[in-house]
Amino acid sequence: MSNQLLVDEGDPDYEKLAAPYLKLYSLGTPNGQKVTTYLRLLNVPYHYRKIDISTNVQKEPWFINLNPNGRIPALSDVDANGKRTTLFETAAILLYLGEKYDTERKYYYSINDGDLYWDQTKWLVFQVASHAPYQGQANHFLIYAKEDVPYGKNRYKAETERVFGVFEIRLKENNGWLVGDHLNIADIAAFPWIRHYGAIGIDIDQFPHLKAWIEKIEKIDGIQDGLNVR
Amino acid sequence: MSNQLLVDEGDPDYEKLAAPYLKLYSLGTPNGQKVTTYLRLLNVPYHYRKIDISTNVQKEPWFINLNPNGRIPALSDVDANGKRTTLFETAAILLYLGEKYDTERKYYYSINDGDLYWDQTKWLVFQVASHAPYQGQANHFLIYAKEDVPYGKNRYKAETERVFGVFEIRLKENNGWLVGDHLNIADIAAFPWIRHYGAIGIDIDQFPHLKAWIEKIEKIDGIQDGLNVR
Repeated sequence: MSNQLLVDEGDPDYEKLAAPYLKLYSLGTPNGQKVTTYLRLLNVPYHYRKIDISTNVQKEPWFINLNPNGRIPALSDVDANGKRTTLFETAAILLYLGEKYDTERKYYYSINDGDLYWDQTKWLVFQVASHAPYQGQANHFLIYAKEDVPYGKNRYKAETERVFGVFEIRLKENNGWLVGDHLNIADIAAFPWIRHYGAIGIDIDQFPHLKAWIEKIEKIDGIQDGLNVR
Repeated sequence: MSNQLLVDEGDPDYEKLAAPYLKLYSLGTPNGQKVTTYLRLLNVPYHYRKIDISTNVQKEPWFINLNPNGRIPALSDVDANGKRTTLFETAAILLYLGEKYDTERKYYYSINDGDLYWDQTKWLVFQVASHAPYQGQANHFLIYAKEDVPYGKNRYKAETERVFGVFEIRLKENNGWLVGDHLNIADIAAFPWIRHYGAIGIDIDQFPHLKAWIEKIEKIDGIQDGLNVR
């Protein structure tokens, strides 16, 4: 259509897009899977741009313009007038998708929900600030580091196990979910990380509620599709 | 008054409190100072319970009941009916204080502010998830660790410098503030951490906009009072 508004995101490998649209820049890592999983659960259509971080494309100026931190995932939401809202940091992206696209509030509490909203905020922030950074460092020292650094291996595996213990108690005390009584964006954030316990040698049998929670989420319709976006 | 509602927080070192009230459990560390600084800027009265983490009081059951992660700061907000809302994770606490106590929206954008709210969310989450954990690890390896681990020292100092560079560009491009055109909870979160650049040997002259931002915030009325809460 001649009157269709086309928007240029600056992405050299992608055509201009007809507004309105949602475009996700990501990769099939736990942080990327938080977002692809949620989008799949919501059945929201979106353009997907795989960011191959091994090529450092995420440090190119057009991507830095989208996320100045140069990390995946990043999200671009363009309205019918071509107005673009950009998001980075997974907690910010999940909250944004919840507010704008989870219109039935299936996995998201809004600020009008009072204490459930604040529980969601606490556990979501806990996941991104007090869980993922340390499990990420455990991955680094135990799997990726080119040097053998026993101090780092021990420190971050131990901290990740401690944090797993915090989640374990929460699930036990809150009937098997991090927030409220069903799957929520806080669980969606934690799940792609926690399921990789084996990669750093954590024995999940120490955490029976966490183990049951992983198995329960893995079976939810759409979850596997979300995890499989590479 | 005989009809005054007294609430027991379980804190063995503190009397029952007359509702309504706000009580902060904290310590004069950068994470604690995020909250004491904001409360001082808002001129909100609150009870203060210093948590001496060297005694492990933060691992006692009454404190775990408040913050299952066993960390400072934690906040208890009790309404006139004695209904208690508990908060942990600094980003959650700052958002809560913004929503409930920054009634003039001086340092906080609400969800009704659209893109400014999402900018606030992005930069606040960036601070707690992608900045503080790494500067915290730099502090650990460079100052506190009982073992000399050069790999850890180099890794986390370098990552902290990279993150300082992200803040530097943001301040340059956004007229000297992380969000909007004045001090915001995202700046309030970042400031107590960034000002300790010297402790890990970062040369702040590499980051002139960050240096100017530190000096500007230090002079704002109330900031020093907030930092001085121990």
